[in-house]
Amino acid sequence: MTIPLTILPDNRELQVAPGTTILKAAQAAGIDITATCGGRGRCTSCRVKFVRGTIPPPTIMDELQLGDDLVREGYRLSCQCHLAEATAVQVAPPLDEQAFQILGADRRVQDVARVVIDAGITKQVVKVSLPREEHHQTSDLEELLTVIGRTTEDVSPAILRQLPQSLRDGQGEVTVTTFGRQVLAVEKGDTALLKFGLAVDIGTTSVVTTLIELESGEQLATVSSLNPQAVFGGDLMSRIAFAQFNPANLRKLQTRIIGLLNQHVEEIVRQSGVLAKWLYKVVVVGNTCMHHILLGIDPSYVGLAPYAPVMRHPLVVPARELFLKVNPEARVCLLPIVAGFVGADAVAVALATRIYESPEVRIAVDIGTNGEVLLGSKARLWACSAPAGPALEGAQVKHGMRGALGAIDRVRIEDDVEIHTIGEAGPLGICGSGIIDALACMLDTGVVDSTGLIQVEQRDRLPLRLRERVVMRGEERQFVLVKKGEVGAPAEIVLSQDDIRQVQLAKGAIAAGVAMLQHIAGIPSEQVAELMLAGGFGNYISIRSALRIGLIPPLPAGKIRYVGNAASLGAQLCLVSETERQRAERVARSIEHVSLAAHPDFQDIFVECMNFPPS
Amino acid sequence: MTIPLTILPDNRELQVAPGTTILKAAQAAGIDITATCGGRGRCTSCRVKFVRGTIPPPTIMDELQLGDDLVREGYRLSCQCHLAEATAVQVAPPLDEQAFQILGADRRVQDVARVVIDAGITKQVVKVSLPREEHHQTSDLEELLTVIGRTTEDVSPAILRQLPQSLRDGQGEVTVTTFGRQVLAVEKGDTALLKFGLAVDIGTTSVVTTLIELESGEQLATVSSLNPQAVFGGDLMSRIAFAQFNPANLRKLQTRIIGLLNQHVEEIVRQSGVLAKWLYKVVVVGNTCMHHILLGIDPSYVGLAPYAPVMRHPLVVPARELFLKVNPEARVCLLPIVAGFVGADAVAVALATRIYESPEVRIAVDIGTNGEVLLGSKARLWACSAPAGPALEGAQVKHGMRGALGAIDRVRIEDDVEIHTIGEAGPLGICGSGIIDALACMLDTGVVDSTGLIQVEQRDRLPLRLRERVVMRGEERQFVLVKKGEVGAPAEIVLSQDDIRQVQLAKGAIAAGVAMLQHIAGIPSEQVAELMLAGGFGNYISIRSALRIGLIPPLPAGKIRYVGNAASLGAQLCLVSETERQRAERVARSIEHVSLAAHPDFQDIFVECMNFPPS
Repeated sequence: MTIPLTILPDNRELQVAPGTTILKAAQAAGIDITATCGGRGRCTSCRVKFVRGTIPPPTIMDELQLGDDLVREGYRLSCQCHLAEATAVQVAPPLDEQAFQILGADRRVQDVARVVIDAGITKQVVKVSLPREEHHQTSDLEELLTVIGRTTEDVSPAILRQLPQSLRDGQGEVTVTTFGRQVLAVEKGDTALLKFGLAVDIGTTSVVTTLIELESGEQLATVSSLNPQAVFGGDLMSRIAFAQFNPANLRKLQTRIIGLLNQHVEEIVRQSGVLAKWLYKVVVVGNTCMHHILLGIDPSYVGLAPYAPVMRHPLVVPARELFLKVNPEARVCLLPIVAGFVGADAVAVALATRIYESPEVRIAVDIGTNGEVLLGSKARLWACSAPAGPALEGAQVKHGMRGALGAIDRVRIEDDVEIHTIGEAGPLGICGSGIIDALACMLDTGVVDSTGLIQVEQRDRLPLRLRERVVMRGEERQFVLVKKGEVGAPAEIVLSQDDIRQVQLAKGAIAAGVAMLQHIAGIPSEQVAELMLAGGFGNYISIRSALRIGLIPPLPAGKIRYVGNAASLGAQLCLVSETERQRAERVARSIEHVSLAAHPDFQDIFVECMNFPPS
Repeated sequence: MTIPLTILPDNRELQVAPGTTILKAAQAAGIDITATCGGRGRCTSCRVKFVRGTIPPPTIMDELQLGDDLVREGYRLSCQCHLAEATAVQVAPPLDEQAFQILGADRRVQDVARVVIDAGITKQVVKVSLPREEHHQTSDLEELLTVIGRTTEDVSPAILRQLPQSLRDGQGEVTVTTFGRQVLAVEKGDTALLKFGLAVDIGTTSVVTTLIELESGEQLATVSSLNPQAVFGGDLMSRIAFAQFNPANLRKLQTRIIGLLNQHVEEIVRQSGVLAKWLYKVVVVGNTCMHHILLGIDPSYVGLAPYAPVMRHPLVVPARELFLKVNPEARVCLLPIVAGFVGADAVAVALATRIYESPEVRIAVDIGTNGEVLLGSKARLWACSAPAGPALEGAQVKHGMRGALGAIDRVRIEDDVEIHTIGEAGPLGICGSGIIDALACMLDTGVVDSTGLIQVEQRDRLPLRLRERVVMRGEERQFVLVKKGEVGAPAEIVLSQDDIRQVQLAKGAIAAGVAMLQHIAGIPSEQVAELMLAGGFGNYISIRSALRIGLIPPLPAGKIRYVGNAASLGAQLCLVSETERQRAERVARSIEHVSLAAHPDFQDIFVECMNFPPS
């Protein structure tokens, strides 16, 4: 059996086996659809617009790459779209190639904000004459500088090491890469089209690295991992304690993160075929502690009142100084810091959500081991840190895991448990969005009460299939989400009482942070135009579930939006746009830091926020 | 038996054992004579002026430290002066502490030129308030910058690594070291008096490192060694051939020289007690090839016509980038280059001799494995390289050695050979000044003829004691300077026929260089006001001997002056004076390079210069 697929503007009708992606079907028939990322949902080049047939629900990749506006207009990525019924699609006209899509803050104006691409990395192909005169000698460098109109100030000794060979290998034709005035590379021949960069989000628990082509702004690959520093402490305070006043331990932490970033580079090179030497710009965001450790700066005093950072300004350092295995002269740009516990990641979230230019008061909540809350508008902007711990990233939860293949990312519980896993693989564990879903359903079905206690004693009130899942194991109350063998699970997956307590601490910290900022800014919930929920949960978080467990204040669901990994997006923005990177500094300076711990009302609010809202 | 020693202005008379130094005698009697360098002849602080008794002949240290003028006025270093007869000395009034002594070019105006000390390294002791506010946080760095009036641009990440601890260890009192705008160190407490630097002269064969206190300009220690790159080739061309198009070999050469410099630092730290972290500025001179190799820049094309360098401009790089074990943020300043074979060392010689401001035409000859000749005045200045080979530095000569303890540095031959050794130790070998002396005497006595042949066949004409020293060993003609056991020699020391050929090549190259520059500039010898002879021979070279062997053109002896290691002095000048370092760039740009090899007359002149002048 085949399904008819019409492709416009050619108006060719193909007969396609069900389940084939539109991209594959078109390519098999010799219809040229560009797929820069190789059909992995990592760019927008293969997008099509549905003109007939049911428009399929958007995948995550559709939403991330195309944005809400285009998705609503019927655009989909043809590489992600499996054919199920007779369909006609139009190969879409090119988007503005100079624009890069971010998650916008103001739905009513423009859901998909755009920035002009201006990564600051320029490549200039020039022809240099080689020195020829024995008596009145010049030098290789002087001949080059004459042609490119720079001075010796703009060239580091590292460039001089490549210069004689590059000049002569290319018979004087070289490509000169610059960032600002600084010369980053002199490569033989014409390499003008090879211009890439990395956006890196170093979280306390997770690290995400994204490869971007710097001329188009296109995402070509993304790699994420657990932060390997976690073996020295799961949360920031324990990691600071490990480093405190011990340079060898600080060095260990620094080496771990640099080693991981270099693994990410290797993986990205492998996936994309982009060579490391073509990576000329890296933008790194992370909380103050991660930032300091990456630079080898002692974070001891970030952990002691008044929790002051050693520095706050944006920094640009050559990659070789951090031993990053991209182009040694690549510039690593670190975004500015607001305070000891409100770091460059919070600034990135502000950038990506455009909260700093919002006419109305918005809230941005970035959920991570060290979460941040931003509240404000273009008038004023407050920020605080919310030390949630790693539970919502799937860490320090018995069967928690990152949002990788086999992670339970959706849970529905009525008469029994239904799960969905990433990649629809056999379940291996549960990630953040799954944990929040599960807890919401457990509250709804009465498996736990509003204090968070698993209702072992009252389990007989539950439907039969659920009843079996509520168990005592020794001293511990557990809820068995997946039994061994069930839906292909190689082992049992449970949420324990302790796991639930961890989630309560996490969501309590975040909810209390939001409440405190509202309190300090004098903004009741009615005046909040929107709450943007950000974080790397592995998958889109369910707003309903987040509301149900009280992770966020009880706003109308329509005012709440999940905006994905906004810190990483902020880094990507600064990677493709120097204007945005400069804006980061102004935004950072405008943010007013609120220290929760120093506020007398905080403890009470926090304890209150730990409970779950009544149904 | 004791000798009376009167010390003024106290007018105390001491009775001193003969051979005691004046410094030791005075200190034993409780008379306070400052000896900053510890009585090692490395500074001027212990100087005295002779008012009664025979003024002893100046030692090398007297001449180097005090300069011709003071020596002539009867000043001597009391640490170098061994008492032999009744003497009265005055503890000398302080010299101008802001002045640093160099070898001047113009005898008639001022033999000891002086420069104003301005090393560019400043130390500022400040009190910084620590961050105190939890809500509106600042950072350690911002608090510091407010006090010292600098911006974040002036601070590298390395400084941020020391900042939190330094600030808190000193309760906010720190010493901030800067070079230009750049912050080099933030040290706890008051370290304002600890400010040192190194002047480094990297020759093809020898490397000399001098420690200087940057406030007074005083020399505190000097270390010299053979260049360990010599195992990969004795002269420049063979070393370039080794490095050519082979990054691993280039790396080997670079590692060797950096390793040696780090040994020098260790030795200097040991000798002086000055810690490596207090070394904030390093000035390096060397020929183009040594300069490029130190920086890891491929010198391949310096060895191929048109022999162009990769760069010529002065460079300032952080010590950490060269893995130099001084303060990692210390600035290493490399002087500018003129051409592929006229390097930063030639520029340093021009600076130290002041030839660039001479009203009359002068010649400066820097004798080294790659020698340089400068000719000119303030009107015009020419330079060429003279590839002499290492013979005059005692290398590639059978029993040659550097000017170290036990090296024969003076030779007199009449009826028999009389030698003097450095430190008056038993002779171990012969250094440059000894080789030149020996050859001059061998010419005078007829041991060699003007073609350089050792006169074995005519030895019967020689006095008996000399006759025995002229021998055939197998195929080789030799002259036995010292027999085994003679004057405490542990082994025989000879000059072989081949050694003499090496010296002929060396002196031929240098003499031909001088002749060519005179030819090109149109300056006959009568118009030359002075010839300044520079080089690290281990000891002062005898002008008479240099003239006798035709190392230099036949000028009246009064027009010839030995000026010591002028390249090292030029480096020292730039170390203590930023004005001089800036001047180096102007001087380098004003020098006109002459390529000898490219000149049609050169070969004839060179062959002619290889012979010795008739007596």
